[in-house]
Amino acid sequence: MDSMEKRELLVLKDILGNNKRIAGEIRAKLREKGILAVNLMSSPGSGKTTLLEALADRLQARFRMAVIEGDIETERDAERIRARGIPAWQITTGGACHLEAKMIGKVLAEVPADLDFLFIENVGNLVCPASYDLGESLRFVLLSSPEGDDKPKKYPEAFLSSHVLVLTKSDLIPHLPFDAARARREALEVNPRLEVFAVSALTGEGMDALEAFLVGERAKLRTPHA
Amino acid sequence: MDSMEKRELLVLKDILGNNKRIAGEIRAKLREKGILAVNLMSSPGSGKTTLLEALADRLQARFRMAVIEGDIETERDAERIRARGIPAWQITTGGACHLEAKMIGKVLAEVPADLDFLFIENVGNLVCPASYDLGESLRFVLLSSPEGDDKPKKYPEAFLSSHVLVLTKSDLIPHLPFDAARARREALEVNPRLEVFAVSALTGEGMDALEAFLVGERAKLRTPHA
Repeated sequence: MDSMEKRELLVLKDILGNNKRIAGEIRAKLREKGILAVNLMSSPGSGKTTLLEALADRLQARFRMAVIEGDIETERDAERIRARGIPAWQITTGGACHLEAKMIGKVLAEVPADLDFLFIENVGNLVCPASYDLGESLRFVLLSSPEGDDKPKKYPEAFLSSHVLVLTKSDLIPHLPFDAARARREALEVNPRLEVFAVSALTGEGMDALEAFLVGERAKLRTPHA
Repeated sequence: MDSMEKRELLVLKDILGNNKRIAGEIRAKLREKGILAVNLMSSPGSGKTTLLEALADRLQARFRMAVIEGDIETERDAERIRARGIPAWQITTGGACHLEAKMIGKVLAEVPADLDFLFIENVGNLVCPASYDLGESLRFVLLSSPEGDDKPKKYPEAFLSSHVLVLTKSDLIPHLPFDAARARREALEVNPRLEVFAVSALTGEGMDALEAFLVGERAKLRTPHA
């Protein structure tokens, strides 16, 4: 390792340590209010926003939810969520490849305190966001069928650091060389504790189970000593 | 900007400056040998390896080619290329979200000098690789139809820094909410100089034009004062 690499590592260690501290404060605050915060990570175009649109349609009659959108540029994803009647805040990172806890902290000042669910859609990137705790209680990694069943072992950190794997776009599987059993098996080899859901947000397939899971996790958060 | 952010920026500036210097040396060396080096960037699962397999089948009867594969983990992509009869070197970054010029420099010592084409498949990531020159003569960005037609403006740097946009998986368009004209228009708004090709590596659609383009670019490289 040369001196530049050593310096780089030291700075990264500082950044991650600082991020972890801020994330811990955010998590404590959100849990105290009974808000289930979910951090959604995936490659660009895996269907994070479309999944949130589908969840909004299902949850909003019974629950209060809000969304924080992370993107490098554009307000587009927040606009899509607002069009569903859900409050949404857009963070544009202006080049940065992931959200950080301090960005969430700044937005939280504007987010209502009486929520049930706060979804945070990370920048589309299957690598960098995995290293940054945002203060979530649940981390989702999405893998869409067109991306291929070989991704969990090639991008292990995203799968290792998540609680839930959502296999998206299952309606496309008949048109693809995609082995859903292999994707699931590889992901569980990387992280045996993953809860796995296979869904199509467009057809609604699998969405009942995912909705029930989220409602159950929120109830646990509100049960003392859970 | 706090002091940690300032320190972070200075380290990044050093890293990028150093990378640019090494990339310049690599580019000069490869051009001198008449080797056309192509850096392929995209999200995970956009079809970089499948495109290279299809190009291998087309080019190898008339040209000598080799591939350098970048991944966070696994030797899988290099194995797929070798199975096509093409020499391939796998760089596993062990967590890093992009290739850097110095990684290419190390591998080049083993790569034959009498090549026509050297393809470098970057880590699947539509963000970070855009900042790192690898010494290529041509940079490709791939966008697959399932990722959605809204990506160029959300991830502009990859499109701004590329010479060529390859719209992949065009065979899936009938099954998708994907507007190819919008994808092309947005990409050209970000970077009007992009050459755009729409292909399906599986059906062969559009591959003749892409192959002809590559052969033409290599010929230009070998023409003095081109």
